[in-house]
Order: sequence, then C-alpha cells, then structure tokens
Amino acid sequence: MPNIVEEFNDYRERMNSNILSDNNKVIKRIFNLDTNAFQSGVLDVRTKELLGLVASTVLRCDDCIKYHLETCYNEGLKKEEVVEALSIATLVGGTIVIPHLRRAYEFWDALEDQG
Amino acid sequence: MPNIVEEFNDYRERMNSNILSDNNKVIKRIFNLDTNAFQSGVLDVRTKELLGLVASTVLRCDDCIKYHLETCYNEGLKKEEVVEALSIATLVGGTIVIPHLRRAYEFWDALEDQG
Amino acid sequence: MPNIVEEFNDYRERMNSNILSDNNKVIKRIFNLDTNAFQSGVLDVRTKELLGLVASTVLRCDDCIKYHLETCYNEGLKKEEVVEALSIATLVGGTIVIPHLRRAYEFWDALEDQG
Amino acid sequence: MPNIVEEFNDYRERMNSNILSDNNKVIKRIFNLDTNAFQSGVLDVRTKELLGLVASTVLRCDDCIKYHLETCYNEGLKKEEVVEALSIATLVGGTIVIPHLRRAYEFWDALEDQG
Amino acid sequence: MPNIVEEFNDYRERMNSNILSDNNKVIKRIFNLDTNAFQSGVLDVRTKELLGLVASTVLRCDDCIKYHLETCYNEGLKKEEVVEALSIATLVGGTIVIPHLRRAYEFWDALEDQG
Amino acid sequence: MPNIVEEFNDYRERMNSNILSDNNKVIKRIFNLDTNAFQSGVLDVRTKELLGLVASTVLRCDDCIKYHLETCYNEGLKKEEVVEALSIATLVGGTIVIPHLRRAYEFWDALEDQG
Repeated sequence: MPNIVEEFNDYRERMNSNILSDNNKVIKRIFNLDTNAFQSGVLDVRTKELLGLVASTVLRCDDCIKYHLETCYNEGLKKEEVVEALSIATLVGGTIVIPHLRRAYEFWDALEDQG
Repeated sequence: MPNIVEEFNDYRERMNSNILSDNNKVIKRIFNLDTNAFQSGVLDVRTKELLGLVASTVLRCDDCIKYHLETCYNEGLKKEEVVEALSIATLVGGTIVIPHLRRAYEFWDALEDQG
Repeated sequence: MPNIVEEFNDYRERMNSNILSDNNKVIKRIFNLDTNAFQSGVLDVRTKELLGLVASTVLRCDDCIKYHLETCYNEGLKKEEVVEALSIATLVGGTIVIPHLRRAYEFWDALEDQG
Repeated sequence: MPNIVEEFNDYRERMNSNILSDNNKVIKRIFNLDTNAFQSGVLDVRTKELLGLVASTVLRCDDCIKYHLETCYNEGLKKEEVVEALSIATLVGGTIVIPHLRRAYEFWDALEDQG
Repeated sequence: MPNIVEEFNDYRERMNSNILSDNNKVIKRIFNLDTNAFQSGVLDVRTKELLGLVASTVLRCDDCIKYHLETCYNEGLKKEEVVEALSIATLVGGTIVIPHLRRAYEFWDALEDQG
Repeated sequence: MPNIVEEFNDYRERMNSNILSDNNKVIKRIFNLDTNAFQSGVLDVRTKELLGLVASTVLRCDDCIKYHLETCYNEGLKKEEVVEALSIATLVGGTIVIPHLRRAYEFWDALEDQG
C-alpha cells in the first residue's frame, strides 16, 4: 500500500526545492515568511498550527490541510483537538468542506499508523 | 477499468462512517442537517438536488458534484435537465468551472453505463 | 427612507448601460448569454431563478442575490420557496453565508413592501 | 460620528430575529450549531474565537470578521494576539485580504474606544 | 458629490499607516513584498498591473480592483486595454464578477474625471 | 513514466468533444467566447495568456493553470516571465496557492522535456 504521508512529503520536498532553486525573489520571501509566521510568538505554535489548519480547510486545499495535520501531529496535538478545529471549519465553510474532511481523517489515521 | 462511480461511493461511505464514529457533535449534526435539507419540502427533491448540484459546481468541488449527479440520476432527472443546470453554473461561475464540467460529464456517462 | 430596491435597480441599469455602450465584444456576449441562460428551457424559469439565487448565495455576491431575489419575486415564487433555496445555500456554503442571508431577508421584505 | 460597533450589532440582531422568526428549520439549526460550536470543549473559547476569526478572514467576510473581533475582545484577548492570528490569515489568504485587514483594525479600535 | 477616488485613497492611506505602525513583522513584510512584486522585472510594470487587476477581479475584491485601476491609470494604460483585461476576468470568473465590473467602470470614470 | 502533458491534453480534448457534441447552447457559446477572448486585441496574445494564467492560479484550478502554461509555452514565453506572473498570483492569492505552484513547476518542466 502506498504510504500517503511519505508520498505527500516526498513530492512536497522535491518540488519546493525545485521552486526555491529557481530564485524568484518574491516566491522565496513568501516561503520564508511562511516559516516565520508559524513560529512561537504571543500565540504558541500549537494554536498557530490550528489556525493554519482551519484556514486551509475553509479554503479547501487538501495539500495545505495535510501539511498542517502533520505539523499538528508532530506538535503533539490530540485528535480531539484537531477534530474540534475541523468541526469549526466545516461549520463556517459549509458542507462543501466535507470531502476534505474525509481526506483529513484518512491522512490523520495514516499519521497515527506510521507512529 | 476502474468503475469511478463505485470507487467514489466506496471511499465516501467508508470515510463517512469513520467520521461519524468519531462522535464530534458539531460534525454529526452537520451531516444530519445535510440529510434533512434535501428532503421534500415546499420545493421537491428534484429541484433541491439541482440546487445542490449548482452550489457544488460553482464552488468547484468534484466530490460534491459527483454526489449530486448521482442523486439527480437516481431521482430520474434527465441528462438535458442536469446539463441545463450545469450550464447556469458555468455561466455564473465562469470558465474556471469547465474542468469540473468535463469530470461531471464523465461521471454522468459512468452512471448511465452502470444502469 | 431610501428604497433599497430602487437604489439597486437604478445603479444596476445605469452602469450596465455604461458597460454595454463601451462595446467590448466579450463582455457584451457574456451579458447576452446571461439573458439567454435564464430563459425557459427543459427547466422552467422559476427553477432557473432558484438555481441562479443559490449560485449567487454560495458565491456570496449581495448584488447577484438581490437580482435573483427580484426576479424570483416577479416570477411569483413564494417566500417559503425562496427561503428553502437559501437554506440549502447556507448549509452548503456554511455560516459565512449568514451575513448575506440577513441582507437577503431585508431585500425580500423591501420587495414585498413596494408590492 | 456613527458608532460602527453599535451599527453592526443593531443590524445583526434585528435581522437575525427576522430570520429566526421565519421558522425555516434548517436555518434555525445552523444558527443553533453556530452557538454550540464556539462553546468551550477540548479547545477553550479563546482559541475557538481565533479559529473563527481566521476562517472569516481568509474567506474575506467583513461581518464575520467583526463578529469574531468583538467576541475576541469580550473574551479578553489582547490586540497582539488578535493581530498575530490576522497575520497568519493574511499570509495564507494573500494580499487580497489586506482591505479586510484595514476594516478589522478600524473595528478593533472602535471596540477599544467604546471600552 | 463625494469623490470616490479621494475617499478610497484617504481611507486606504490612513488605515495602512495604522496597520504598519502596529509593527507586526509578518504583516509589514507582506506589505513590503507587495511593493516589490509589482516593480519592473522581466515583465514590465504595465503588464504586472494588469495581472494584479485580473487577480483582484476574479477574486472579487472591490478595493483591490480600485487600487489596480488607479495604478493602471497612472501608468498610462488606456481604457481599452484595461477593459480587455477585465473582459478576460469576467469570462474566467463568471457573471458573478459583473457587479464588480459595474463598480470598476464607475471608478475608472472617476479617475478620468479628476484628470 | 506517464507523460503528464499528453495525459492532460488527451483527457481535455476527449471530454471537450463530449461536452460540445451535447449541443447545450449556453455551454457551446461559453467555449466559443473562451477562444475569442484570448485572441489578439488591444492586448497581445502573450499578455492575455499571462492574464489567464494568473486568473487560473489565484482561483486555484490546476487544469486551467496547465492549459495556460501550455499556451504560454507555445507562444514562446520564457520561464522567467511565467514565474514572475506566478509570483504575483502567489502574493495576491496567498500561501494557499503554493501547492498549485508545485504542480505548475512540474508541468512546465514536462513541457520543456517534451520540447
């Protein structure tokens, strides 16, 4: 069975390297900002990751959802906390979000499976 | 050849069960509401399914489009009626909707093929 | 008290004339298509207007909602029918749609007030 | 000078009453869910309000942003915390979010002014 | 008669100052990037402004449209060129864009009126 | 290795034929308009293709991005020009656009590989 976590990470890393080696300044600085914005500030990293997850979910981007699910998982957030954030996203974003919820659950399970 | 209708339904049912067994109250109630909202009211089920189809199409969610195409098909709506609804969605939502239109046509054909 | 129906219609008509007199062919043909798409076909005008209303609502465009509310009203659709369509739009589109629902109710009341 | 906080709240309350008195079951249950979803769970109310704020901001709904700014303010969240959440929303949602950021700052100032 | 160009610029400048004086690093850097991205590169400023205009139009943000209309105007782009860009945005984004097209035409006229 | 350019073109052509043979007038006229809108006018074809690319990117439609990348490539636009347009799209549309940027780079490389 293909591991959807590895597959996602491999493609993401490979293409991000490709993009960054291309040296477009605006894009490079956006990537940089992305790293900085999610670091600990007056809000802690866990809260920020949940904010990133909800933003990604209401905007319905599977790859962004996967990325934030993985960082949430690595930060030690519990499934109940992540699901509560996803429930708010589904309420605000509507039932159009549900297909992404299905893939989010599948990805979270895969994260737990690989330990 | 993989049957895209079965594939869609299998994944959908499996993951919906997964989500509902997780017992998040907000998400469960949204799923419930989804069932209720499309039942016959002052508008009949066929009209409501077309409304759901158009909403899904302008919001450009392939899975939601597939779901409503299948319920439209099961309700006995004709292809001409469904396509007329899709044409309004394409006009309102713009040419950005066209790739979803391609997949909608493919899914409708698959629904007809499996009879 | 300003009449929100008249205000909307006056501005809309004035600016549409302005746009159409500008003679950009693509824009003119889109305006034309808009007229054709909502005419009676295999779906009747009332159903199409509800489709237009739901598309406008999930895409959260107040002016488009107002336009379709007015055409629904002129086609003799009842408030209960329009509200049922709006309820599906709110479910699919999420609570982010609610502010537009408030303005839709206000506009419908204004349509009824002016008779 | 018109008080933008009062204006917002007055219109919101008046039209919500109007909508709820209309007795559409789906809409009433969505309103109900909205209240429940933001109550304390495994995530606390403050975190949930920030999630609601970020969802509203990336989906670019001024009224929803105002609503969550006010609940954030009433929950005692500091401007620095709210702005950090808004900065994530602006990064994820892009510069298209900036006009909403301007109105968010204006509304927050109005909340502080009225004490 | 209120001058919609001045009104827009005054509010924009006042609130941008407010935001920038708040010293959130992520937001300040996004503002900075925004300035850099539209400077002459392998694409010239005029082309970039048209790209910004089309992006703003399909994303349906009136303030962003106004901003890029004004920079287009100041760069000496002709109405025909701007309208051709807007026609592509309307086709790709759909008729949901039309209300923004009305306001875009009004704003362009105001730019020409103030010379 | 599957050729992602051929795969995309084959599916696109096959389903477009399917759609057009269905003879829905509104859809056929939208397809027609799409051809006309991108022809040389007061703006040249290259500029229009970049406008189409940016519109597709901020609206986050992979298939539309692929289509315009290919037309850009065939019009002789250089990678630097295309990337500069994509950088503006990423800034305006936010980091939610980045996954589409990854797939855009992959597709551009495939276009160059097939020569």
